[in-house]
Amino acid sequence: MTPKAIQDYYPEPYAHCYGCGRLNEHGLQIKSYVQGDEVVAVFRPEPYHIAIPGFVYGGLIASLIDCHSIATAAAAAHHARGSDMDQGPPLRFVTAALRVDFLRPSPLGATLHLKARAKEVKGRKVVVDATLSVEGEVCAQAEVVAVEIPEEMQIREQAT
Amino acid sequence: MTPKAIQDYYPEPYAHCYGCGRLNEHGLQIKSYVQGDEVVAVFRPEPYHIAIPGFVYGGLIASLIDCHSIATAAAAAHHARGSDMDQGPPLRFVTAALRVDFLRPSPLGATLHLKARAKEVKGRKVVVDATLSVEGEVCAQAEVVAVEIPEEMQIREQAT
Repeated sequence: MTPKAIQDYYPEPYAHCYGCGRLNEHGLQIKSYVQGDEVVAVFRPEPYHIAIPGFVYGGLIASLIDCHSIATAAAAAHHARGSDMDQGPPLRFVTAALRVDFLRPSPLGATLHLKARAKEVKGRKVVVDATLSVEGEVCAQAEVVAVEIPEEMQIREQAT
Repeated sequence: MTPKAIQDYYPEPYAHCYGCGRLNEHGLQIKSYVQGDEVVAVFRPEPYHIAIPGFVYGGLIASLIDCHSIATAAAAAHHARGSDMDQGPPLRFVTAALRVDFLRPSPLGATLHLKARAKEVKGRKVVVDATLSVEGEVCAQAEVVAVEIPEEMQIREQAT
């Protein structure tokens, strides 16, 4: 497993994301690590991350899958181009489509385990398959279409 | 527009949801209202609900769409059965599938407008189409498959 999380390679302007920004003190601060040909993460929900009593909020699950898959896309794109994440310019992706199937309710009070893998890397687009499991059971499976940050968002970002 | 939000009809055990529970002080407390044959809601993100600087976090958008669509499903199911939401037993749905296409980035600092409509009501399943717009432009469109809360979740809920 890589010792440094993928999100910790994001340069400062991209490190404020509510889901995975190390600089967002209100956020979830998800950390995703390359492990072989997969990317893994764990997350422990707070008691208030509730849907109905006893179960994890689906919007949190979607959020975790989103950021984890975007990190997976960045790592896969670097790998495909033969570049290292710590050698600039770093690649940063955004979500074009998020599809989550909730297979069974995720119990609150346990650690959530995320796994993801890029199944397609083509130009500026990466398609990622992801799962979220609790105690060995897959509770959600997802497909995320990630695209490299479009120019208009980079311009806006630089203007901030 | 109905004067009372759909979520305010949810009985107390179902009013703790992080996205829309009136009793979750840490949550988003989304309120969805029936307006003609649509269901509408507005939400003003906090500055920390950020993706990259200047834009709203996609996981928040997915969360808002999720809860808003679940409320839409409840209202549609009551309507289809000719029952009122304030006359028990109330119907409560969970998300089976969430599909969000992010058409364009949603700027931070503006009000998000949600609209949803049930396009299929069949047995315990309701399929909802939803959009999220900012300043008149649709930024995300979604399809949500909602199902009435399954028995095992009700049992777990009663045991809490």
